[in-house]
Amino acid sequence: MTTHKFEHPLNEKTRIYLRVEALLAQLLNASQHPDGIQYQLFFRALFDLLDIFEQIQLKSELAKDIEKQRQMYRSWLNVEGVDQVTLRTLLQDIDGIHRSLMNAERFGLSLKNDRFLSTIRQRFNLPGGACCFDLPALHYWLHLPTEVKLKDANQWIANFKALSDALHLWLRLTRETGDYQPQTAKNGFYQGEATDAHIIRLAFSMKDGVYPMISGHKNRFAIKFLDFESNQASTQDIAFKIAVCN
Amino acid sequence: MTTHKFEHPLNEKTRIYLRVEALLAQLLNASQHPDGIQYQLFFRALFDLLDIFEQIQLKSELAKDIEKQRQMYRSWLNVEGVDQVTLRTLLQDIDGIHRSLMNAERFGLSLKNDRFLSTIRQRFNLPGGACCFDLPALHYWLHLPTEVKLKDANQWIANFKALSDALHLWLRLTRETGDYQPQTAKNGFYQGEATDAHIIRLAFSMKDGVYPMISGHKNRFAIKFLDFESNQASTQDIAFKIAVCN
Repeated sequence: MTTHKFEHPLNEKTRIYLRVEALLAQLLNASQHPDGIQYQLFFRALFDLLDIFEQIQLKSELAKDIEKQRQMYRSWLNVEGVDQVTLRTLLQDIDGIHRSLMNAERFGLSLKNDRFLSTIRQRFNLPGGACCFDLPALHYWLHLPTEVKLKDANQWIANFKALSDALHLWLRLTRETGDYQPQTAKNGFYQGEATDAHIIRLAFSMKDGVYPMISGHKNRFAIKFLDFESNQASTQDIAFKIAVCN
Repeated sequence: MTTHKFEHPLNEKTRIYLRVEALLAQLLNASQHPDGIQYQLFFRALFDLLDIFEQIQLKSELAKDIEKQRQMYRSWLNVEGVDQVTLRTLLQDIDGIHRSLMNAERFGLSLKNDRFLSTIRQRFNLPGGACCFDLPALHYWLHLPTEVKLKDANQWIANFKALSDALHLWLRLTRETGDYQPQTAKNGFYQGEATDAHIIRLAFSMKDGVYPMISGHKNRFAIKFLDFESNQASTQDIAFKIAVCN
């Protein structure tokens, strides 16, 4: 039986980071498919990212967060018992990624000014708005040879390189702080404490037929398992694994 | 070099019919892919359809339009030179489809009341809102075995049967009224006349590097070809084919 992996952000900024991560994955995945319909997913992810960049100063938030990680890892330099070779390699990676991030333009700026993209962006959210008569320029583009489309797509994706590297680094280091521990939700309910945590990660079996609703913030959280079929709070004892990541 | 086929509706109702046709195709196409990411396209199409059904009384509009076609074809009964066997078969098809349409519930009513669908519909339009923490029930569903997902998808799609049959009939009969005729857009521009037309259909070669912007209504229309690269009006003479469908 499949294991269901589940992540929940414990603050608004991490929520956005996880959304951006999912959108970047969708962008990359959809760009690889030769089938035209996939490009709806591609452009949807692209425009969702541009929407997010307009709402928050993602670049400076991420730079601050990477800087915090750098300070923490620097404090381990010359500490006995810490593998100094691995640590120095990591610090070099962080330095390079932080530098590229600081040198990058405001996220999405070039894409926002791209004539083709801004033409189609306006109408893309109409219900069923991806028809040829609503978006003739997009329709033309979709008829271009696969290699031309892929070249354009890769060029647009390249704009996200500094963001993508920094975000993946931050998320990787954050996820690595947590180890999965077995727990039980008595009567489908579990309450936990944390210290300045960013993400909680769960793993549980699909055989219980439940999914989690999680509420909480960096220091305290509650997990309520709901029965998928009835949509009611489960009254079973549910075994799961949890990792709290700072 | 590929031919670019292009359709343009000459009234608002036909515009919606063509959008609904595209959404139904997307729904069907996306439901057949075992890859989970496709279901974003599936649910997007489904919710776009529900949005459209809330905006217009699609069922009664379509019933009226099918009735008009029925009356026209009935007027050919016993007319010399008309193949009566084909005509009677067509009239039987129309009768059956019209009857099913009249017996159908208001489009989308059951789906609108579906608990699972309405839970996910609310948050589906958030930028990047399809993350597990935004839509835990969807995330659970996506982890179900492929055959379970396909069964659910087919059951939801079945709700659109009467609509789909009626819409495809109306569009097929409408498209059949037009024959492609060769034309030239002098300096990239063409103006045409029609009588109570619903759709114009174009076919032109991708090698000209242009796409059409069409304006007009049921009795008159103008086609301006734009150069894709420069986004400016083309000044070439462009050969194309056009079919005007009533």
